[in-house]
Amino acid sequence: MSQPVIAITMGDPAGIGPEICLKALNDPEVLEACIPVVVGNSQVLEALSRRLDIPLSADKLHRDDLDGHITPTGPAIVDMHVMGLDDFIPGRIDPVCGHAAYGYILYAVEGAMAGHFDAVTTAPVCKEALNAAGIRFPGHTEILENRTKAPGAVMMLHSPRVTVSLVTTHVALRDVPPALSKQRIGRVIDLTHQMMTRLLGHSPRIAVLGLNPHAGESGLFGDEEKRAVAPAVEAARAKGILVSGPLPPDTAFTEAALEFHDAHVCMYHDQGLIPFKALSFRDGVNVTLGIPIVRTSVDHGTAFDIAWKGKADHASIVAAILLAARLARSE
Amino acid sequence: MSQPVIAITMGDPAGIGPEICLKALNDPEVLEACIPVVVGNSQVLEALSRRLDIPLSADKLHRDDLDGHITPTGPAIVDMHVMGLDDFIPGRIDPVCGHAAYGYILYAVEGAMAGHFDAVTTAPVCKEALNAAGIRFPGHTEILENRTKAPGAVMMLHSPRVTVSLVTTHVALRDVPPALSKQRIGRVIDLTHQMMTRLLGHSPRIAVLGLNPHAGESGLFGDEEKRAVAPAVEAARAKGILVSGPLPPDTAFTEAALEFHDAHVCMYHDQGLIPFKALSFRDGVNVTLGIPIVRTSVDHGTAFDIAWKGKADHASIVAAILLAARLARSE
Repeated sequence: MSQPVIAITMGDPAGIGPEICLKALNDPEVLEACIPVVVGNSQVLEALSRRLDIPLSADKLHRDDLDGHITPTGPAIVDMHVMGLDDFIPGRIDPVCGHAAYGYILYAVEGAMAGHFDAVTTAPVCKEALNAAGIRFPGHTEILENRTKAPGAVMMLHSPRVTVSLVTTHVALRDVPPALSKQRIGRVIDLTHQMMTRLLGHSPRIAVLGLNPHAGESGLFGDEEKRAVAPAVEAARAKGILVSGPLPPDTAFTEAALEFHDAHVCMYHDQGLIPFKALSFRDGVNVTLGIPIVRTSVDHGTAFDIAWKGKADHASIVAAILLAARLARSE
Repeated sequence: MSQPVIAITMGDPAGIGPEICLKALNDPEVLEACIPVVVGNSQVLEALSRRLDIPLSADKLHRDDLDGHITPTGPAIVDMHVMGLDDFIPGRIDPVCGHAAYGYILYAVEGAMAGHFDAVTTAPVCKEALNAAGIRFPGHTEILENRTKAPGAVMMLHSPRVTVSLVTTHVALRDVPPALSKQRIGRVIDLTHQMMTRLLGHSPRIAVLGLNPHAGESGLFGDEEKRAVAPAVEAARAKGILVSGPLPPDTAFTEAALEFHDAHVCMYHDQGLIPFKALSFRDGVNVTLGIPIVRTSVDHGTAFDIAWKGKADHASIVAAILLAARLARSE
């Protein structure tokens, strides 16, 4: 493959998305690894370029250009023209911005499905802005599932120090125990194994965590380890996956445990995200497993409080783009 | 107060307890901060001293000496004589050891209640050995509650980087949501506030975590934040406690969040212990809140695999003894 073409959605225009995209378009590592194509709004990026004095050097493409099989040969912006600079105020939740951000995602995902892009990296959207625009998806994952017709997307967070994938995500903690099954956990182990094999170039060592304190202490607290986690671990091992578990969650992220494992399969959101956010700093990347396209994302939100101020850190979007490029090459 | 007298229970003789006690008796910081009195077995400590070539210099006291109001003036061993060297094999679970370890705890706790000791620091016991000896307590906490007649002991883990206290501990995750109430959370906030005020010398800033992902995202996932956590936070604030919450758990342990808070009140075992063990390394200390004596403990287990081999790290017991001494002085 020559340089992969990565669609980078600009995210909510009123957040830090435009700024981190602009900075990514100037990042030498990004330019070396891929052809970055920001799906967004050129007026917004040009205004921000002037305001923050950050150069903007990218071809301007019309949304129909790629459908017509123009292939970008260098950094580009696909101009979506759904809004203008006067339609919103940076830092404010606005349905116009939610509507625009949704359009960027649809375009990028459909372009990836059609083969115009080798991967998609997304800047943050604002759920309230999406809602205000009448878009009933709570976030990227659900939009991706819907548009790629792949229900059961799995969230993995990756950084050089720690990688976690989640069996359940945005549900109440009380709904986690009944949601765990051998099948569901087994699928996350399989997808994690596949993704980490691509990333590492060899079979990963996967830790599968228990649900309960001390992984249930042999059935003393809760039966989910016996009922769901252990059977999923055994089934994975029988397939030749290098897997250990159910591990006591509290010692699974010590320095020694991190050295020994390449990825952790976690039963619920905070079991994975608490240690991930405590241990990985600026370079965390969100990778979506179980969908037919490569998609990575930043691990932070729209940060309206610092939007358009030149204070946004682009380390996470750069890490997300570089990972997308690596994955695109490994396909 | 002159130097506080700290009872140090030797823990399970077949584990690393004797070795870390022996090393603590030689630690200059320990000797400067307190008069350490190991409650255990002098034969065991002498044998280990010879085997590992670690000096043992301590007065030998009989268990009745302290009752007779002999006050130790330097490092000492209270010899409990419930077992001999031939009665057990290092590294093996044995009811003889469980029985002996239980006796050390009872003696230390009763001595502290009677005023012979200013504080108690405990080395690890083995639950299986306790069980095998017919002792039906799952661990130290329950023994402490029973002997001090203070039901509702609260576990706090403290290290220079992070401090967590737990609203629930050894229960199945599915039993956590119904166990949360404004009263129970409020009590843990109060006890944490008191302890951290003693430790810091000023009012601490306390983070109270939500239960659900994103602290429930305004009621979208679970109602425990609205029903129990937020009311407890408001009640604490009304008393003048510096408290924030319910915080989204996943961002509560980032570097910035740790800098801003002196302690975290966590709703369940792994919400606190995952980040604690990920972020604090050799110097974690367990402090028991809500009982009428000062009690600290190591944050590790008996480590039978390395018992009696000279490989045990005594950093945690030293930190636990130093903290006990500080707390004894602050009473």
